[in-house]
Amino acid sequence: MAEMILVSGHKSPDTDTICSALVCAHWLRAQGKEAKAIRAGEINKETAFALNYFGSEAPELVTRVEAGQSMYLVDHNESKQAVDGMPDADVQGLIDHHRLGDFTTDQPILIRIEPVGCTGTILYSLYQQCDIEIPRQMAGLMLSAIISDTLLFRSPTCTERDRKAVQELAQIADVDYEKYGMDMLKAGADLSDKTAAELVLTDKKEFDGKKGTFSIAQLSVMDTQPILAQRDELLRLLEEDRAAHNYEASFLMVTDILEESTDLLYTSQVETAIEAAFQVKGNAQTLHLPGVMSRKKQVAPPLLGAL
Amino acid sequence: MAEMILVSGHKSPDTDTICSALVCAHWLRAQGKEAKAIRAGEINKETAFALNYFGSEAPELVTRVEAGQSMYLVDHNESKQAVDGMPDADVQGLIDHHRLGDFTTDQPILIRIEPVGCTGTILYSLYQQCDIEIPRQMAGLMLSAIISDTLLFRSPTCTERDRKAVQELAQIADVDYEKYGMDMLKAGADLSDKTAAELVLTDKKEFDGKKGTFSIAQLSVMDTQPILAQRDELLRLLEEDRAAHNYEASFLMVTDILEESTDLLYTSQVETAIEAAFQVKGNAQTLHLPGVMSRKKQVAPPLLGAL
Repeated sequence: MAEMILVSGHKSPDTDTICSALVCAHWLRAQGKEAKAIRAGEINKETAFALNYFGSEAPELVTRVEAGQSMYLVDHNESKQAVDGMPDADVQGLIDHHRLGDFTTDQPILIRIEPVGCTGTILYSLYQQCDIEIPRQMAGLMLSAIISDTLLFRSPTCTERDRKAVQELAQIADVDYEKYGMDMLKAGADLSDKTAAELVLTDKKEFDGKKGTFSIAQLSVMDTQPILAQRDELLRLLEEDRAAHNYEASFLMVTDILEESTDLLYTSQVETAIEAAFQVKGNAQTLHLPGVMSRKKQVAPPLLGAL
Repeated sequence: MAEMILVSGHKSPDTDTICSALVCAHWLRAQGKEAKAIRAGEINKETAFALNYFGSEAPELVTRVEAGQSMYLVDHNESKQAVDGMPDADVQGLIDHHRLGDFTTDQPILIRIEPVGCTGTILYSLYQQCDIEIPRQMAGLMLSAIISDTLLFRSPTCTERDRKAVQELAQIADVDYEKYGMDMLKAGADLSDKTAAELVLTDKKEFDGKKGTFSIAQLSVMDTQPILAQRDELLRLLEEDRAAHNYEASFLMVTDILEESTDLLYTSQVETAIEAAFQVKGNAQTLHLPGVMSRKKQVAPPLLGAL
């Protein structure tokens, strides 16, 4: 029997990472391989909405993989963002749309990284290139991933290919993608049951800067006021998490989906560097950044340059 | 005007690296970009035969690129194998079929690595996916690259896709690929005008092992006897080059294309480790390895494991 390939997205999973793991596993099985998706953390409300809508089970929770385990990675490549044990696993493929970090291989493997808005868009191309039929459920998961990562085409990371993929996938999934997309984003933006301690860790990712590691979490909401009203408490908890992990600094992006802007909250160590990086004057550990919605494209690069 | 993208292969260029740089530059231009191929070293006889047969000029020699220069890399990704200055250039794309080494990016870029026998095979897929017509000259360069890297399908790195690509490209290039391929390999295997000092540096690549850097050069010939008759002199020059670069060890693969075997010559520091890596008893800094033809697949991995 063929060995089982575990397909994993990143820690603090979002809709792209979960849906792309499920879709990539299907794509591998359609090519005769044994593959199943796993997840490295809890499913968020937006993802739960998408899985429920298209009748898919969540992948199995796996927090550590064995040394030598066959794997595919989707939607990430840096070891800090991966399921524990990944660096010692046998990674056979990587499908991603992020910068290439510390990932290396001993042998040539399949690596497909493209500067598009979503891993789902790359997977859609792979189905087409391999001439594999896309079932309705997989089409629904891919379009959910793309709508999530591009905030329904509002993010500056969104490309023409992402837009076209959603339009074509919506035909297969038989769904009004604009209505479905807003419903899904709203489900994800409902943070009413989250504690402040949970808010500061939402979708948190670690980055290795020149001087040390820093973290960036991100909340995407329809209305930032209820969040920003808790700013002092959020900043206190952000500092607590920073100190616990010995990060150089910690950041929380509070992104307004409708207004297309971000309030960036950050711990106190880096005020001057941050203001220089964004060329904006901050106010008490907060920067208001109009037009900024993308951690990957608009926030991580200046911080990687500054820290 | 759009910025000029320089498309570069590796140092000690071989036929795949030169042809893929020319082909990739054409593929980029066909998409409306400004691009031109460069080369990081001298053209070998095999490559000269291919360029001449299909009426292509050699790329311009560039031994160092400026910081911030727009680039595409083909057929390599490790900084030690790249044109000088590459780590500070603005690399916008990477098309390769080797292990992923120390290459990282600040932004997401196009990265396409596939475990096939030749970069040319991946480029052939890219033309098809982008629905770009392949001119006869480009078809000829791609099939030359694939025949070179797979030693006309004899190498264990050769996949079904490589074979199919050559068959289809031969139609476009209007060439009998078996006859042409043998003629091209023979042109490359003619080492009669090479000094021993040149022989030990042929197609030399550096690798970062756990304990330090080592080098592997490779000669592919129709008859190994004239080479092996100079073994003592070759070993002396290999040690001289090793000492000059402070390598942990240096290797020279003398590969017999017809017999499909390799005699591996190596400097004296590593006898025990090498015998263990290949599970063969060596004789005076030489191992005879039947069935071994591929540096990438059969020689570098055990050495990376052992050194």
